[in-house]
Amino acid sequence: MSQVNAYAAQSATSDMAPFSIERRTLRPDDVAIDIDFCGVCHTDIHFAHNDWGATVYPVVPGHEIIGRVTAVGEQVSRFKAGDSVGVGCMVDSCRTCSSCESGLEQYCAEGMTGTYNGKDRHDSSITFGGYSERIVVSDRFVVNLPAGLDPASAAPLLCAGITTYSPLRHYGVKAGDKVAVVGMGGLGHMGVKFAKALGAEVTLFTRSENKVAEAKKQGADHVVISSDRAQMKAAREQFDYILDTVPVQHDLNPYLACLKVDGTHIIVGLLEPIEPALQAGALVGKRRVLTGSLIGGMPETQEVLDFCAEHNITCDVEMLDIKNINEAYERMQAGDVKYRFVIDMKSLKTSP
Amino acid sequence: MSQVNAYAAQSATSDMAPFSIERRTLRPDDVAIDIDFCGVCHTDIHFAHNDWGATVYPVVPGHEIIGRVTAVGEQVSRFKAGDSVGVGCMVDSCRTCSSCESGLEQYCAEGMTGTYNGKDRHDSSITFGGYSERIVVSDRFVVNLPAGLDPASAAPLLCAGITTYSPLRHYGVKAGDKVAVVGMGGLGHMGVKFAKALGAEVTLFTRSENKVAEAKKQGADHVVISSDRAQMKAAREQFDYILDTVPVQHDLNPYLACLKVDGTHIIVGLLEPIEPALQAGALVGKRRVLTGSLIGGMPETQEVLDFCAEHNITCDVEMLDIKNINEAYERMQAGDVKYRFVIDMKSLKTSP
Repeated sequence: MSQVNAYAAQSATSDMAPFSIERRTLRPDDVAIDIDFCGVCHTDIHFAHNDWGATVYPVVPGHEIIGRVTAVGEQVSRFKAGDSVGVGCMVDSCRTCSSCESGLEQYCAEGMTGTYNGKDRHDSSITFGGYSERIVVSDRFVVNLPAGLDPASAAPLLCAGITTYSPLRHYGVKAGDKVAVVGMGGLGHMGVKFAKALGAEVTLFTRSENKVAEAKKQGADHVVISSDRAQMKAAREQFDYILDTVPVQHDLNPYLACLKVDGTHIIVGLLEPIEPALQAGALVGKRRVLTGSLIGGMPETQEVLDFCAEHNITCDVEMLDIKNINEAYERMQAGDVKYRFVIDMKSLKTSP
Repeated sequence: MSQVNAYAAQSATSDMAPFSIERRTLRPDDVAIDIDFCGVCHTDIHFAHNDWGATVYPVVPGHEIIGRVTAVGEQVSRFKAGDSVGVGCMVDSCRTCSSCESGLEQYCAEGMTGTYNGKDRHDSSITFGGYSERIVVSDRFVVNLPAGLDPASAAPLLCAGITTYSPLRHYGVKAGDKVAVVGMGGLGHMGVKFAKALGAEVTLFTRSENKVAEAKKQGADHVVISSDRAQMKAAREQFDYILDTVPVQHDLNPYLACLKVDGTHIIVGLLEPIEPALQAGALVGKRRVLTGSLIGGMPETQEVLDFCAEHNITCDVEMLDIKNINEAYERMQAGDVKYRFVIDMKSLKTSP
């Protein structure tokens, strides 16, 4: 196993020595999981490269995890050895604040414990994520993989999926609503699928003419080329909801103008300051709403998997051998993946 | 009557010649009103000074109007001569768009017709407002003054009142909610009264230590001095709603931090670009909402008057003779009024 984690760490920083970790002895509420598949999220790149200045090396990225239970702690009743399960972006929270009590652990007052690069609440060790053979996670933060969902393409539902599903459900998107999705990467293409499955009329905003056919294949009813002034003008005041998946700074004002009265713009990718400056008048003049949303709580993470099984939705994935992770990062940064890389963990065993 | 309007116009620009207007012959849906009182709104100053570059001179400001019906058009059944009535910020709209059909005429797809400096939808004449002896308004845009409400102190309910009442109602503020109001001018002090009347626990954010006693007199349970770092830190994640009445650019980030998960920051005063830049992470990380609200529709404008009559709420006013309007503008700009000037229109008849 040392080889596994050494590989992940080295993929992040080439000058690091290999290291060895042992997964912890099971606590009473723990679930031990052999990992089959792990999706590759843009956040992984940020942590591997320490873009946010918060990385504790060695880091083992990965928070879109699908695997099989190998053992459970004495208090665990929801899972047993052999179960197919998933683990997403968090592995613990305070469990007592009002958010945790409402099943919104991602908004825990004390801060959730990240699946990787988090600090374990019991022993203060740094958590290691899913680019690995195994993981041990408290049962509250493990979900069941419903029968019928392909395990590899279900992996990204644990982050890209829940991140787009949660706000659409929270704001009650329903049949007849006009929903626009901005950007069609890993998150955006899931947003299109979910909005469509919820009965909405779906529009994709994209800068790329060459994404039009693909967007329609994903379920979009319409495509607006956001760099085309005439198209943007025609889109004004058309939408009930805009799901904005763009993860870098961009001008929100042209999109706000596309919302109807009482329309809602939902940020799920952007964490930077909002520049150029937002026009307050665009909110006041039409009672529009700007909001954000962060992944989803554990009950809703189970719900999105069940929803996907019911509606036959999965993420479009490209399978990846772990030895190609650095190339995958480069391709992701170039927007060259449809739409999520998923590491086949069998490739760990054959890695050099 | 020429003297009246000449006065108002001259108060705006001293180099203008006096002018004369005649109120229009009654259309079938018109209500002719003798004006008793008119509140003085900051917007009046902006239009008088052409701060927004949109003023058509001569301008007769005033959109917080209380008066008595003198005559009605042949199709008017809701009003009769002698009725006490009010007119607010708008006197017409398209009446057919979905907003108008929902009683949200302020968000009319074609744009509402402002009570002053608007363009009449029938004859394209420029509308004149309430610093005047008389006004003629289509019945849809006239509301009844409930018995028991003091007419002078009810006047500002037509703008300052409805502007703060509408978002609190739209977002469903109720007993037990923690509501903060930012700023305690004409709008802010009404926001405190309404939030309190709706059963909320009310906090005022103010920069001025010397407003603490006054805020508590108005009904605030708590006061936070926004320039005090320790007080702002203690206020973090405390509020369900923040009603932000500050009409000039200010940093919203410290206030967003004071919202709970799912908390809502409502802008009613600010129309400028939001700078310094809003931190997107503050929205995403706690699913917070930033929104705005513009006055209220006609059904809700009637509702706020009825609510005030029922709860014995009025605006705190300082009565004003029209000849002192320029001094009043100066005092308003210095924040020196508790909390709204109201012009006694009898003073017009004795003006030079």
